[in-house]
Amino acid sequence: MNLYFDNGATSFPKPPEVSKAVARYLDVDGAPYGRSFYEKAFTVSSIVEECRDQLASFCSIPNPERLTFTPNATFGINSVLKNFNFKHKKVLISPLEHNSVMRPLEYLRKRDGVQFEYLPAKKDGLIDIDRIKVDKCDLVIISHMSNVNGVIQPIKELKKIIGETPILVDAAQSCGHVTIDVNSWGIDFLVLTGHKSLLGPTGTGALYSSDKYNLEPLLHGGTGSNSESISMPQEYPDFFEAGTPNIAGIYGLNAALKNRPEPLHDRSSFCNLLKKLSSIDSIEIYSADDIARQGELFSIKHKEKSPSTFAFELYNIYGIQTRVGLHCAPVAHKYLKTSPEGTIRFALSPYHSGNDLDYLYSSIKSCSNNGK
Amino acid sequence: MNLYFDNGATSFPKPPEVSKAVARYLDVDGAPYGRSFYEKAFTVSSIVEECRDQLASFCSIPNPERLTFTPNATFGINSVLKNFNFKHKKVLISPLEHNSVMRPLEYLRKRDGVQFEYLPAKKDGLIDIDRIKVDKCDLVIISHMSNVNGVIQPIKELKKIIGETPILVDAAQSCGHVTIDVNSWGIDFLVLTGHKSLLGPTGTGALYSSDKYNLEPLLHGGTGSNSESISMPQEYPDFFEAGTPNIAGIYGLNAALKNRPEPLHDRSSFCNLLKKLSSIDSIEIYSADDIARQGELFSIKHKEKSPSTFAFELYNIYGIQTRVGLHCAPVAHKYLKTSPEGTIRFALSPYHSGNDLDYLYSSIKSCSNNGK
Repeated sequence: MNLYFDNGATSFPKPPEVSKAVARYLDVDGAPYGRSFYEKAFTVSSIVEECRDQLASFCSIPNPERLTFTPNATFGINSVLKNFNFKHKKVLISPLEHNSVMRPLEYLRKRDGVQFEYLPAKKDGLIDIDRIKVDKCDLVIISHMSNVNGVIQPIKELKKIIGETPILVDAAQSCGHVTIDVNSWGIDFLVLTGHKSLLGPTGTGALYSSDKYNLEPLLHGGTGSNSESISMPQEYPDFFEAGTPNIAGIYGLNAALKNRPEPLHDRSSFCNLLKKLSSIDSIEIYSADDIARQGELFSIKHKEKSPSTFAFELYNIYGIQTRVGLHCAPVAHKYLKTSPEGTIRFALSPYHSGNDLDYLYSSIKSCSNNGK
Repeated sequence: MNLYFDNGATSFPKPPEVSKAVARYLDVDGAPYGRSFYEKAFTVSSIVEECRDQLASFCSIPNPERLTFTPNATFGINSVLKNFNFKHKKVLISPLEHNSVMRPLEYLRKRDGVQFEYLPAKKDGLIDIDRIKVDKCDLVIISHMSNVNGVIQPIKELKKIIGETPILVDAAQSCGHVTIDVNSWGIDFLVLTGHKSLLGPTGTGALYSSDKYNLEPLLHGGTGSNSESISMPQEYPDFFEAGTPNIAGIYGLNAALKNRPEPLHDRSSFCNLLKKLSSIDSIEIYSADDIARQGELFSIKHKEKSPSTFAFELYNIYGIQTRVGLHCAPVAHKYLKTSPEGTIRFALSPYHSGNDLDYLYSSIKSCSNNGK
């Protein structure tokens, strides 16, 4: 049985090919990327570029060179926010943003007076397309899929409404789980991580930035190109990829993209799970009000037991591994009225079977009713 | 035979335990770091902290919490330079700096008018302790071991001379090969990479910053701590470690630190190699003038053949893998008068035997003399 429900933090298990590919780099191919001329170095560079191409294709990015590797999603978000030209000093965000967005914004507020305001939203945090007004706003930032209640935001519709105003989509939770179409949705900046729903290793991620925006990179340093110059080369991806990348990790991510598993449970088992849980009186469920906007991640809270007590019981008696607390998203919890204690979060993976979901349901039910 | 001499770019092979440890994380332990409460998550967190403690001890850092993990050395250097308070707008550097230092400095020169000047140095780039004058200088930056000619700089003596002026030591090439003593040398900032002489995976590195300096972090984001706040927690290492770290890589680095190989060649074989090479008339060797200041990395240049022609012959006929060109260090090449073509670089590893060095010598000799 797979009792690991902390896939919102990092996914487990990975496809078995992931660690094999990482080992192939470390034990066999081991050579630098884009910096040397012998055969092994060419092999390494070609696998890094294969991963870039696969990932670009996966997100419908027509120009893969604008998809640059990052160590994680936080790096991608910081890359955009720290060097963006905020003319109006105003940013619009969803009420479900993670601290990977909130903390850079709070820093910019204090340093440069950049203000953030919330997009109008419904009770579950789903933005309310009909009430959105974009006036003198530099950037709209939105978490594609909430890491607290799994709400999937309507990126395509949002971009239509905001028009020329650029959008930064934080796809840390969604990429690998929900379709992303950079090209047809008109996404300006997209931030990914490799170690969540993409099922790759930690230490991998990517930032897509549209060629309409040429921001200063977050890192300046060696690129193996234009080495005669002490200025960064202007070409992408080099411009945004100073320093040796996580080649071992990129090998793993490449393998993850090539070996995506068929989910062991179907969508209706997940919907059933939510439906059955909603019939347990003593718990509150935090999820999307519209099931069509629900990613396979949700939170619960018991009406009497604290989240940590409840999560500990679930783990101690049933072996179920979850995440408890604020999940680095205090503004989301304020909006959902789950502060200051937060919630217990369950994030599914394709490696959960229908039986795993049944077991999860009966475990939650039993803990909710004190074993009755 | 081990014909890989590109260890200055990235080391190969690694101790076999490295990929096993990475696979253990990816296939068995897989869980987040510092963010969840179940057993696997505790195991993961304890291994990350074990790695931090080992690395701190390895560099004689008394306060491991000030050693924060980074994706590479470039990130560490940028973390210091982009947020340092340059009161006098003046930095002193060695003439052998890498673009990981030069490109951030050039950026700061253009953005903020921060000027860099060179420390006085001898012909091989070794800084000349007796001629150093530090006047109205904010920071001294020095590559501990050159990635072009292997010169090891006298950090302890330099810090004595510059006194209260802070020093940033780029130990990307040296750490794992040359002793580093942060505590007794009085280093203020130390930047490491895990994938070179430390023999760990790509995507790992670390930054030590003395508690005399509390710089703004390069990244703001989630830390799994103080999650109720949209400001960064002030405690180290969290303050400098926003976002999910490269846990898989840190597992590998931890294993590399625990399984450091005994070198298969001794120091005298290396010194002999240099001595024998210096008797080949048709090549020029770029190394330290004082053998006591020589790391096991050096460059050569043939008097007639271009570096790329020579390196290609070495590879094509003898299978020897090297790095050719400017090695991302154009200022070093200007100083050593090897611009614009650069050099062929040979960087040894503990996995080279005396026989490998003999083979390297005879291959270079044969190519130098056109097979004669």
